[in-house]
Amino acid sequence: MNSIEKYNQRAEKINSLLCVGLDSDFEKLPERFKSLEFPQLEFNKWIIGEVHEYTAAFKLNSAFYEARGDRGIKELKMTMEYIVKNHPDIFTIMDAKRADIGNTNKSYISAIFDWLDFDAVTLHPYLGQEAVQPFLDRKDKVSIVLCKTSNKGAGELQDLEIVQSSTLHTLHKKLWQIVAEKVSKEWNKNNNCMLVVGATYPEEMKKIREISGEMTFLVPGIGAQEGSVEEVMKNGLNSEGLGLIIHSARGIIFSDNPKEEARKLCEEIRKFKGI
Amino acid sequence: MNSIEKYNQRAEKINSLLCVGLDSDFEKLPERFKSLEFPQLEFNKWIIGEVHEYTAAFKLNSAFYEARGDRGIKELKMTMEYIVKNHPDIFTIMDAKRADIGNTNKSYISAIFDWLDFDAVTLHPYLGQEAVQPFLDRKDKVSIVLCKTSNKGAGELQDLEIVQSSTLHTLHKKLWQIVAEKVSKEWNKNNNCMLVVGATYPEEMKKIREISGEMTFLVPGIGAQEGSVEEVMKNGLNSEGLGLIIHSARGIIFSDNPKEEARKLCEEIRKFKGI
Repeated sequence: MNSIEKYNQRAEKINSLLCVGLDSDFEKLPERFKSLEFPQLEFNKWIIGEVHEYTAAFKLNSAFYEARGDRGIKELKMTMEYIVKNHPDIFTIMDAKRADIGNTNKSYISAIFDWLDFDAVTLHPYLGQEAVQPFLDRKDKVSIVLCKTSNKGAGELQDLEIVQSSTLHTLHKKLWQIVAEKVSKEWNKNNNCMLVVGATYPEEMKKIREISGEMTFLVPGIGAQEGSVEEVMKNGLNSEGLGLIIHSARGIIFSDNPKEEARKLCEEIRKFKGI
Repeated sequence: MNSIEKYNQRAEKINSLLCVGLDSDFEKLPERFKSLEFPQLEFNKWIIGEVHEYTAAFKLNSAFYEARGDRGIKELKMTMEYIVKNHPDIFTIMDAKRADIGNTNKSYISAIFDWLDFDAVTLHPYLGQEAVQPFLDRKDKVSIVLCKTSNKGAGELQDLEIVQSSTLHTLHKKLWQIVAEKVSKEWNKNNNCMLVVGATYPEEMKKIREISGEMTFLVPGIGAQEGSVEEVMKNGLNSEGLGLIIHSARGIIFSDNPKEEARKLCEEIRKFKGI
């Protein structure tokens, strides 16, 4: 079983496409955790306990652990050990947004796939396939490539208009279309790629679904960034009623009632399933 | 004094544009270091002692420290403390190739600029200026944006042809040209940006020099990747005989005689200065 199947099995088992972001910024933790020996770990264990029944995937953004130096990295590792031991069927994503030249990526792979034991990592596409090939070669793991990101200024580069000329015709495409085509047609030889497609760009999501067939999208931008679950479900589901990992972090983990917020978002996803 | 001036002062003081990469991959360390309590730190201290007189900048690639988990991050921190204490005038670059959405970047900034105290960081451009603005807002630090990278497959995205249409005319440009224009004209309001331009693409370097005025380039690709110092100096120097940070890692730090290799590369740079 590769990791995409792991995600699909979990999503079908609990009838949810929800990914909870353990973006456990120390500054934002409830006071009762801040004085503990392992504040980020203990907060994560609490959140995991509250939300796991609604959760098909956990995404941990590396930045919030790196901010606390080696102590943060240690708690990231301890969190992963906790998840792998207690919830081995939940898909895990390190949102690290990495990508270096080939040789250097091997060290990132050691850290993210082997030492930390994540199922998936997010990657920048700018250096091209040749650079990230060591990630793609890991058939047991998933490479999630940034395609159309959720931020307001995403279009500055991603919406640039590209000309593709051949003897027969000239085509004009956006950069995100080219990334979607390349990743789905060329980078995905091992069937272990996904794409990042922001909930804030539903029209683009619809086109990326057409381009990429059954590929799975990691979808940030619900909640604080105001993307709509209905629009995401309408434009992003694949033909199997899967193909989406719908992410929410702040709106759940720093709410007054994480369990209730996770339940509500999961219910919303279920409501629109099959549209 | 902002950090670009720090680099320029050091480069002029020792008449060198050499940047030594402390890419201290544990697997490649000489055996005598591997059994020490802090193998990467001790190796770095040895290399720094050997090469510092020829060195205008040190670049540390995060991947090689992350590969050893929290222990590696601790040794990265100890290495930075050692450099800041003993060689405070040498410019320091964390080659982390980061970039996330705005809010998340603040945590990377805490880690890289504040906790580790690097002068500069490398960034992917794909998310756009709005996303990396928190980095750009740090006037005391330098953001080095990937423009034309040194790897063989760099062109897959970077050489895509972009159309820019206005009422007057239609222009065709490569993606790397757009990045060079945007960073030099729009992102660089605080005069604290640099560009990554690979030594393996001298023609592109020449054009990026024309586009970007006096901006400084971080230049990987000398040595193992076969870029030529002569070509880099001919195409990349700015009008002040500066504007280049010429990087070498493996060819120096894992050679039989790091001091001699650093001296030779520094001499080669001096030879072509003023061409």
